[in-house]
Amino acid sequence: MQEECGIVGISSSDTLPFDLYYSLYALQHRGQESAGISTYHEGEMELKREMGLVAEAFGEKDLNQLQGNSGIGHVRYSTSGKSRIENSQPLLVSSSEGELSIGHNGHIVNSNKIRKELEEEGHVFTTGNDSEIIAHLLSKNYTKYKDIVKAIKKSMDELRGSYSLILLWEGKIIGVRDPYGIKPLCYGKTSNGYMVTSESVALDTIGAKLIDDVAPGQIVIADEDNLNKYTYRKEGTAHCFFEHVYFARPDSKIDGKLNYDCRFNIGKKLGENYPVEEADLVSPVPDSGITFAIGYSEATGITYKESLMKNRYVGRTFIMPGQEMRETAVRLKMNPVESNVKGKKIVLIDDSIVRGTTSTQIIKQLKKKGAKEVHLRIGAPPIRFPCHLGIDMATEEELIANNNEIKDIEKQIGADSLNYIGIDELIEALNIKKQKLCLGCLTGEYPV
Amino acid sequence: MQEECGIVGISSSDTLPFDLYYSLYALQHRGQESAGISTYHEGEMELKREMGLVAEAFGEKDLNQLQGNSGIGHVRYSTSGKSRIENSQPLLVSSSEGELSIGHNGHIVNSNKIRKELEEEGHVFTTGNDSEIIAHLLSKNYTKYKDIVKAIKKSMDELRGSYSLILLWEGKIIGVRDPYGIKPLCYGKTSNGYMVTSESVALDTIGAKLIDDVAPGQIVIADEDNLNKYTYRKEGTAHCFFEHVYFARPDSKIDGKLNYDCRFNIGKKLGENYPVEEADLVSPVPDSGITFAIGYSEATGITYKESLMKNRYVGRTFIMPGQEMRETAVRLKMNPVESNVKGKKIVLIDDSIVRGTTSTQIIKQLKKKGAKEVHLRIGAPPIRFPCHLGIDMATEEELIANNNEIKDIEKQIGADSLNYIGIDELIEALNIKKQKLCLGCLTGEYPV
Amino acid sequence: MQEECGIVGISSSDTLPFDLYYSLYALQHRGQESAGISTYHEGEMELKREMGLVAEAFGEKDLNQLQGNSGIGHVRYSTSGKSRIENSQPLLVSSSEGELSIGHNGHIVNSNKIRKELEEEGHVFTTGNDSEIIAHLLSKNYTKYKDIVKAIKKSMDELRGSYSLILLWEGKIIGVRDPYGIKPLCYGKTSNGYMVTSESVALDTIGAKLIDDVAPGQIVIADEDNLNKYTYRKEGTAHCFFEHVYFARPDSKIDGKLNYDCRFNIGKKLGENYPVEEADLVSPVPDSGITFAIGYSEATGITYKESLMKNRYVGRTFIMPGQEMRETAVRLKMNPVESNVKGKKIVLIDDSIVRGTTSTQIIKQLKKKGAKEVHLRIGAPPIRFPCHLGIDMATEEELIANNNEIKDIEKQIGADSLNYIGIDELIEALNIKKQKLCLGCLTGEYPV
Amino acid sequence: MQEECGIVGISSSDTLPFDLYYSLYALQHRGQESAGISTYHEGEMELKREMGLVAEAFGEKDLNQLQGNSGIGHVRYSTSGKSRIENSQPLLVSSSEGELSIGHNGHIVNSNKIRKELEEEGHVFTTGNDSEIIAHLLSKNYTKYKDIVKAIKKSMDELRGSYSLILLWEGKIIGVRDPYGIKPLCYGKTSNGYMVTSESVALDTIGAKLIDDVAPGQIVIADEDNLNKYTYRKEGTAHCFFEHVYFARPDSKIDGKLNYDCRFNIGKKLGENYPVEEADLVSPVPDSGITFAIGYSEATGITYKESLMKNRYVGRTFIMPGQEMRETAVRLKMNPVESNVKGKKIVLIDDSIVRGTTSTQIIKQLKKKGAKEVHLRIGAPPIRFPCHLGIDMATEEELIANNNEIKDIEKQIGADSLNYIGIDELIEALNIKKQKLCLGCLTGEYPV
Repeated sequence: MQEECGIVGISSSDTLPFDLYYSLYALQHRGQESAGISTYHEGEMELKREMGLVAEAFGEKDLNQLQGNSGIGHVRYSTSGKSRIENSQPLLVSSSEGELSIGHNGHIVNSNKIRKELEEEGHVFTTGNDSEIIAHLLSKNYTKYKDIVKAIKKSMDELRGSYSLILLWEGKIIGVRDPYGIKPLCYGKTSNGYMVTSESVALDTIGAKLIDDVAPGQIVIADEDNLNKYTYRKEGTAHCFFEHVYFARPDSKIDGKLNYDCRFNIGKKLGENYPVEEADLVSPVPDSGITFAIGYSEATGITYKESLMKNRYVGRTFIMPGQEMRETAVRLKMNPVESNVKGKKIVLIDDSIVRGTTSTQIIKQLKKKGAKEVHLRIGAPPIRFPCHLGIDMATEEELIANNNEIKDIEKQIGADSLNYIGIDELIEALNIKKQKLCLGCLTGEYPV
Repeated sequence: MQEECGIVGISSSDTLPFDLYYSLYALQHRGQESAGISTYHEGEMELKREMGLVAEAFGEKDLNQLQGNSGIGHVRYSTSGKSRIENSQPLLVSSSEGELSIGHNGHIVNSNKIRKELEEEGHVFTTGNDSEIIAHLLSKNYTKYKDIVKAIKKSMDELRGSYSLILLWEGKIIGVRDPYGIKPLCYGKTSNGYMVTSESVALDTIGAKLIDDVAPGQIVIADEDNLNKYTYRKEGTAHCFFEHVYFARPDSKIDGKLNYDCRFNIGKKLGENYPVEEADLVSPVPDSGITFAIGYSEATGITYKESLMKNRYVGRTFIMPGQEMRETAVRLKMNPVESNVKGKKIVLIDDSIVRGTTSTQIIKQLKKKGAKEVHLRIGAPPIRFPCHLGIDMATEEELIANNNEIKDIEKQIGADSLNYIGIDELIEALNIKKQKLCLGCLTGEYPV
Repeated sequence: MQEECGIVGISSSDTLPFDLYYSLYALQHRGQESAGISTYHEGEMELKREMGLVAEAFGEKDLNQLQGNSGIGHVRYSTSGKSRIENSQPLLVSSSEGELSIGHNGHIVNSNKIRKELEEEGHVFTTGNDSEIIAHLLSKNYTKYKDIVKAIKKSMDELRGSYSLILLWEGKIIGVRDPYGIKPLCYGKTSNGYMVTSESVALDTIGAKLIDDVAPGQIVIADEDNLNKYTYRKEGTAHCFFEHVYFARPDSKIDGKLNYDCRFNIGKKLGENYPVEEADLVSPVPDSGITFAIGYSEATGITYKESLMKNRYVGRTFIMPGQEMRETAVRLKMNPVESNVKGKKIVLIDDSIVRGTTSTQIIKQLKKKGAKEVHLRIGAPPIRFPCHLGIDMATEEELIANNNEIKDIEKQIGADSLNYIGIDELIEALNIKKQKLCLGCLTGEYPV
Repeated sequence: MQEECGIVGISSSDTLPFDLYYSLYALQHRGQESAGISTYHEGEMELKREMGLVAEAFGEKDLNQLQGNSGIGHVRYSTSGKSRIENSQPLLVSSSEGELSIGHNGHIVNSNKIRKELEEEGHVFTTGNDSEIIAHLLSKNYTKYKDIVKAIKKSMDELRGSYSLILLWEGKIIGVRDPYGIKPLCYGKTSNGYMVTSESVALDTIGAKLIDDVAPGQIVIADEDNLNKYTYRKEGTAHCFFEHVYFARPDSKIDGKLNYDCRFNIGKKLGENYPVEEADLVSPVPDSGITFAIGYSEATGITYKESLMKNRYVGRTFIMPGQEMRETAVRLKMNPVESNVKGKKIVLIDDSIVRGTTSTQIIKQLKKKGAKEVHLRIGAPPIRFPCHLGIDMATEEELIANNNEIKDIEKQIGADSLNYIGIDELIEALNIKKQKLCLGCLTGEYPV
């Protein structure tokens, strides 16, 4: 189950549904399957969730009905079959201690165990997804300890996996980040309150100022006037490096690093260590390869030019060609720019290779259009293992780097040369200590 | 909260979603807000719920996806504001003992108390509606007693109010009727299994045969081969008389009585006891007054003719005229038939009077079209008290009969004469003992 | 091509789109495929058309945008495949003489010939349906004669077939009825203008008063202050008798006759001439048989009771059972009322028999439920020929009465006895002279 | 009336609706309001048009129903109020000579005159838009001359303005380009037929090969086996320079020039002639400024980096903030990349300035985020006059360059320096002779 999602919470002295709407829009790249907002207004909670993009899910009327001056929002991504409204978030539950709304980004690895324990204590579940399990756990512990911070900490004692949470509780917004800090979470100041969210771009979008990242194992609680911080404990930080490299927007600052800089530096490092002699141009696979390619150009002096143009109109209802038309499928998304391809020696930059099928098609396409040579450089090291913490990549067998040497991959995809950034080079480019990163999909060593 | 709904469950040796679809369609008059179906297929449960009519909620593709050879369905009616997909049914929950799906018709009067108790035991709720509370209660008791019949009985110990339930559990369908038998429930035999449902018309529609009503306080459990009956206890039967008079379809047999006969006999009784001298015709307020009027005609010899034609195309999206156009609103729904109105002395028959506003407008309309006299006869006694068991009529103050004598009502609505059937006459016509009926809205004496 | 439709035009001193909306709603039974409204406001015309019911096609916002104090509306019925928005009406065209909007009910038999002539004169068509051909013809003649009445008359010289037209032209509404008066058209007075429409129920619905039918071959032109009448010429009246018997609402007055009376008298005549000895009840096939059955009961003294209940929720998206489930299909629509069927000798009344398949299934169903005898009486004489003037019944071969004697039909459909009203009896009951009716589908002799 | 649109026609020996669908998708940037396809199959034409994007307008079922082995498609852009399905294209008309379908890109300046003349000859119009007028003119001339090429030429005698047309006629596809060649049109070879379309990217997308541009005043007619060319006459070429600079995709080749090269060369020219001393980076306003900025970087050696990130999810239903929230509106679309802004001296490149409001907001935003200096360079010369040939820019008064000197604009928008490319520099960069370009919006001298 893929659980990459975007979350946001805002406390305010004014009504805020439009701010939540615009924030979710800034996080739309983190999930396009469903969108939801819950708000707190004079002691009552309101919830609205719909399938689709933020702009499809909410109309002006909906936002006007969702009064309230604190609230949380969620966008969900899912590749699994159960794409149902029941699984969309935020979730809203009530217990003896009142109502609680919750939005979750991450993946709880021991959710079945916790669920079983809760069921044995009599808990009954409606959806059974991670968010409901966390909500029940929190409710149980709050009922027991009557102290929200203690309840959260006791719940964190049991949760294993990645989780950034946004809670709406008694009119306050609460951000919780797992002890490893796997998924991003940050907070900032709006003109009349506070905001907690997955990425700083959501703050930028509504004109709020980033204060800091929520630290691994930290809890932040905000109303319109104050934001208080509580420490659970750190487990040894393990930020997902892929957020910097691919998931988060380049203009987001995550764990103190602007992703643009991360990608630019990786690109430079790739250029320094894996140059191509007498190349005519360096070119990205759009959009994810762009910043890497600009860095590569900086390091090598090779001209940055676009050899592929992306069509921006593929939506959920678009009829993709079937398997037998894989070439058409690639052409629909990316079209070669003739004068930057024909007779050219191209350095092509992509963020990562998962199965290798898209790279194969792109190179084939460029060669067909007359490219003399295509040298592929990749901004992430070879992905050899599946992610168990919330990213739905592929099964171990499907990962091309799981059972192939780089030279074999080079041959399979038809590149004239292929180089990945090395793990140590990556770490140097990110300028984050190795022990502070989750590199599970590269090394097979997971923090949890 | 109005809780008039329709429920159905079918066990079968064959796939059944189309049978559930057609059954719900036959029960559509019991609820038009949302429709849902859950099915059991090889150990897994599937659920699909949508807002709107059965035909809007389910397409052919949906039904083909809902495999399974046992399943339950629900249509919901709601006049309250919270018309949300979250409140639609069936509900599907899971606990330590597995999955349970539930559909409910009725109103639990002590739901807040039960909820509070469950919350104190740690239960966390998602919607907080009656169905979820019953589901949690059942799950709790099953976990405790590991015996489904005992679990249901223990739950019934706590539930106060009206409830007919349909459960889907381990591939079996289970029907439960409250100890007073307030809401209808019956069961029958299909060609390859069993069926439990609110009204016998659902059986008729798919060619199944009615076996019997589920007795008050009875539990029936069926798989494709067998149907077993268990007795909780009767509390003293209290069937809602309004099911016979208004809610259920006239072609349904409820608690041994064909509603057509009930209404026809009430009409006859009205004719015998409240005749109108030299009337030109007896005419129904369509559609609910039709069968009464036919009976009245039979008893009095006054010709049955239609003086009002109903427009059959008002749907959910229809733009009704505002308050200032109340007359237009009535004309949109019912148009006088000139030759049966002009210069005529009309006996007009309706099933009941709630607020009196519609009756006032209809009589005004008939008089405007030239009616010489309009004598109103009503198939239900004066409704003086609100229903606490699941029917959303009006508040006590809104009920015209709550604070007006019949003579005053006659004057207010502009009738040349007005008569309601008397309570004893009603009982005689229904041919059901008084102590076996719930007459709470007439007498203020409720069974629960 | 089936062309049964409903049309309306209103001139007013006030804005009127809501009046058009409610009028179309009153005519909804004449066409459920598409709905449209065009209005005239300060020299400009607006048009809005959508597929579906009136309530689906227009929202409050749409009606508020459609300003204007004269306008026309149309509901369309179509069984043919080309159910496209392009074929919906009203049509709005412009020529050298300005804009013209048109709504049409009927069928032009020489449309291909006229179209060809117009094309040869250089006309270019977008849809090629009858309405566009009439619009072009009118425009051509207006351009030539610069006199709208003359232009209409010259156009009528060429048109063969049935047509009731509503035009919107220079802020005036114009009603035109073909020289035989085949399709209905009437006009009335609203509180602040005039109205022309297919059936008087549309007048009733918005509180307007019927003045008269538009005579065969008559043209009426109205603005908010005046309504003027012009005579083309009569060809020999030929009103479609089926409007009285089936198409139009029973509460509509058409060509001086209230349809309720027509159907009631036919029912009486059936009772007088085709009685059934010792029948237990007379019962309609709902809804179209109701008024006939009431008349039959009046004439024979046999009790009127319902033996079949109709489900009112079949909509456009309803999934009907396939061919192999024809019985289910009938049960979905009509369910027997047990106590009026079991052991009973039933006189069943329907308006007409086309293919005979539905009658067969109904009788089978009643017998299965225990009916002792079913005697079928039909309010229209045997339909032996197809209609060439706008009613899509069936092909000649499909018409059961085309190649079967009544005794054979009786046997085929399983009735214990079958009688149709005779043509002369029908004429007597309608109290309209034979030469004033179109009886083409009964006799094969068509007026055109 | 804005008339920027995309057109395509394909002749094939095989069924082709999916090819048309993918071609329109490649042209989606030319129009997002509506999409339509008409096909020719065994002597009959089919048409389907819908509002919205190509992917919203057509489902798999629609495409399968649209059989046929020749067909045309259209995407429409409109900023005017009359965004109605009636105005969508292709149009399908019939005349004495058969059916003709037509798609149009451009703007006919004498359409009212032609319409009036046609109306005086008796033509009646349904929509009155340019396409219908052209269709009627073609039909009239074909009827007269019975020769399609002659009919097109005679029609071209009368049409003034810009037009690229795609026709479907007797199973053939016909491309027509106005004598000035204002709007683009090209043709190519598919695996089993021919294709005519607005931009070469549509050819690329389905794997077809570009043969050539349709020359100004040229007519091409193709069936699956042959493509024939006919010359009307050239009027003096006047290609819209804005197609190269903004409208068409950079990967399209138009009139022999790859737009990527045009934009890159303009960028270089801007760099050579309007350098910025000691700038930290050159950055585009995304997406339209990207290629210019890459060229500028090449010429000046200033590093290319992105200072603004674009949110890619704004769709038709997105709720934009009101006027009072103009800043938020810009932030929603483009967010600054902190490390490329703070303390930086930025060269910002955009394709053009129309009203100047967006530029003002962007510069304000960058300064707010700490930009030291922002130097704006523009890839199109000052737009001083409105376009009369199909591009809806703004009224003369709204154009900031119409009544302001460059120095005043620089001040108004808050740039530290502002330079536009000069007209002669533009011409040099495009490498197209001045007399072969339409520069009407720059000089006020229009070709027509």
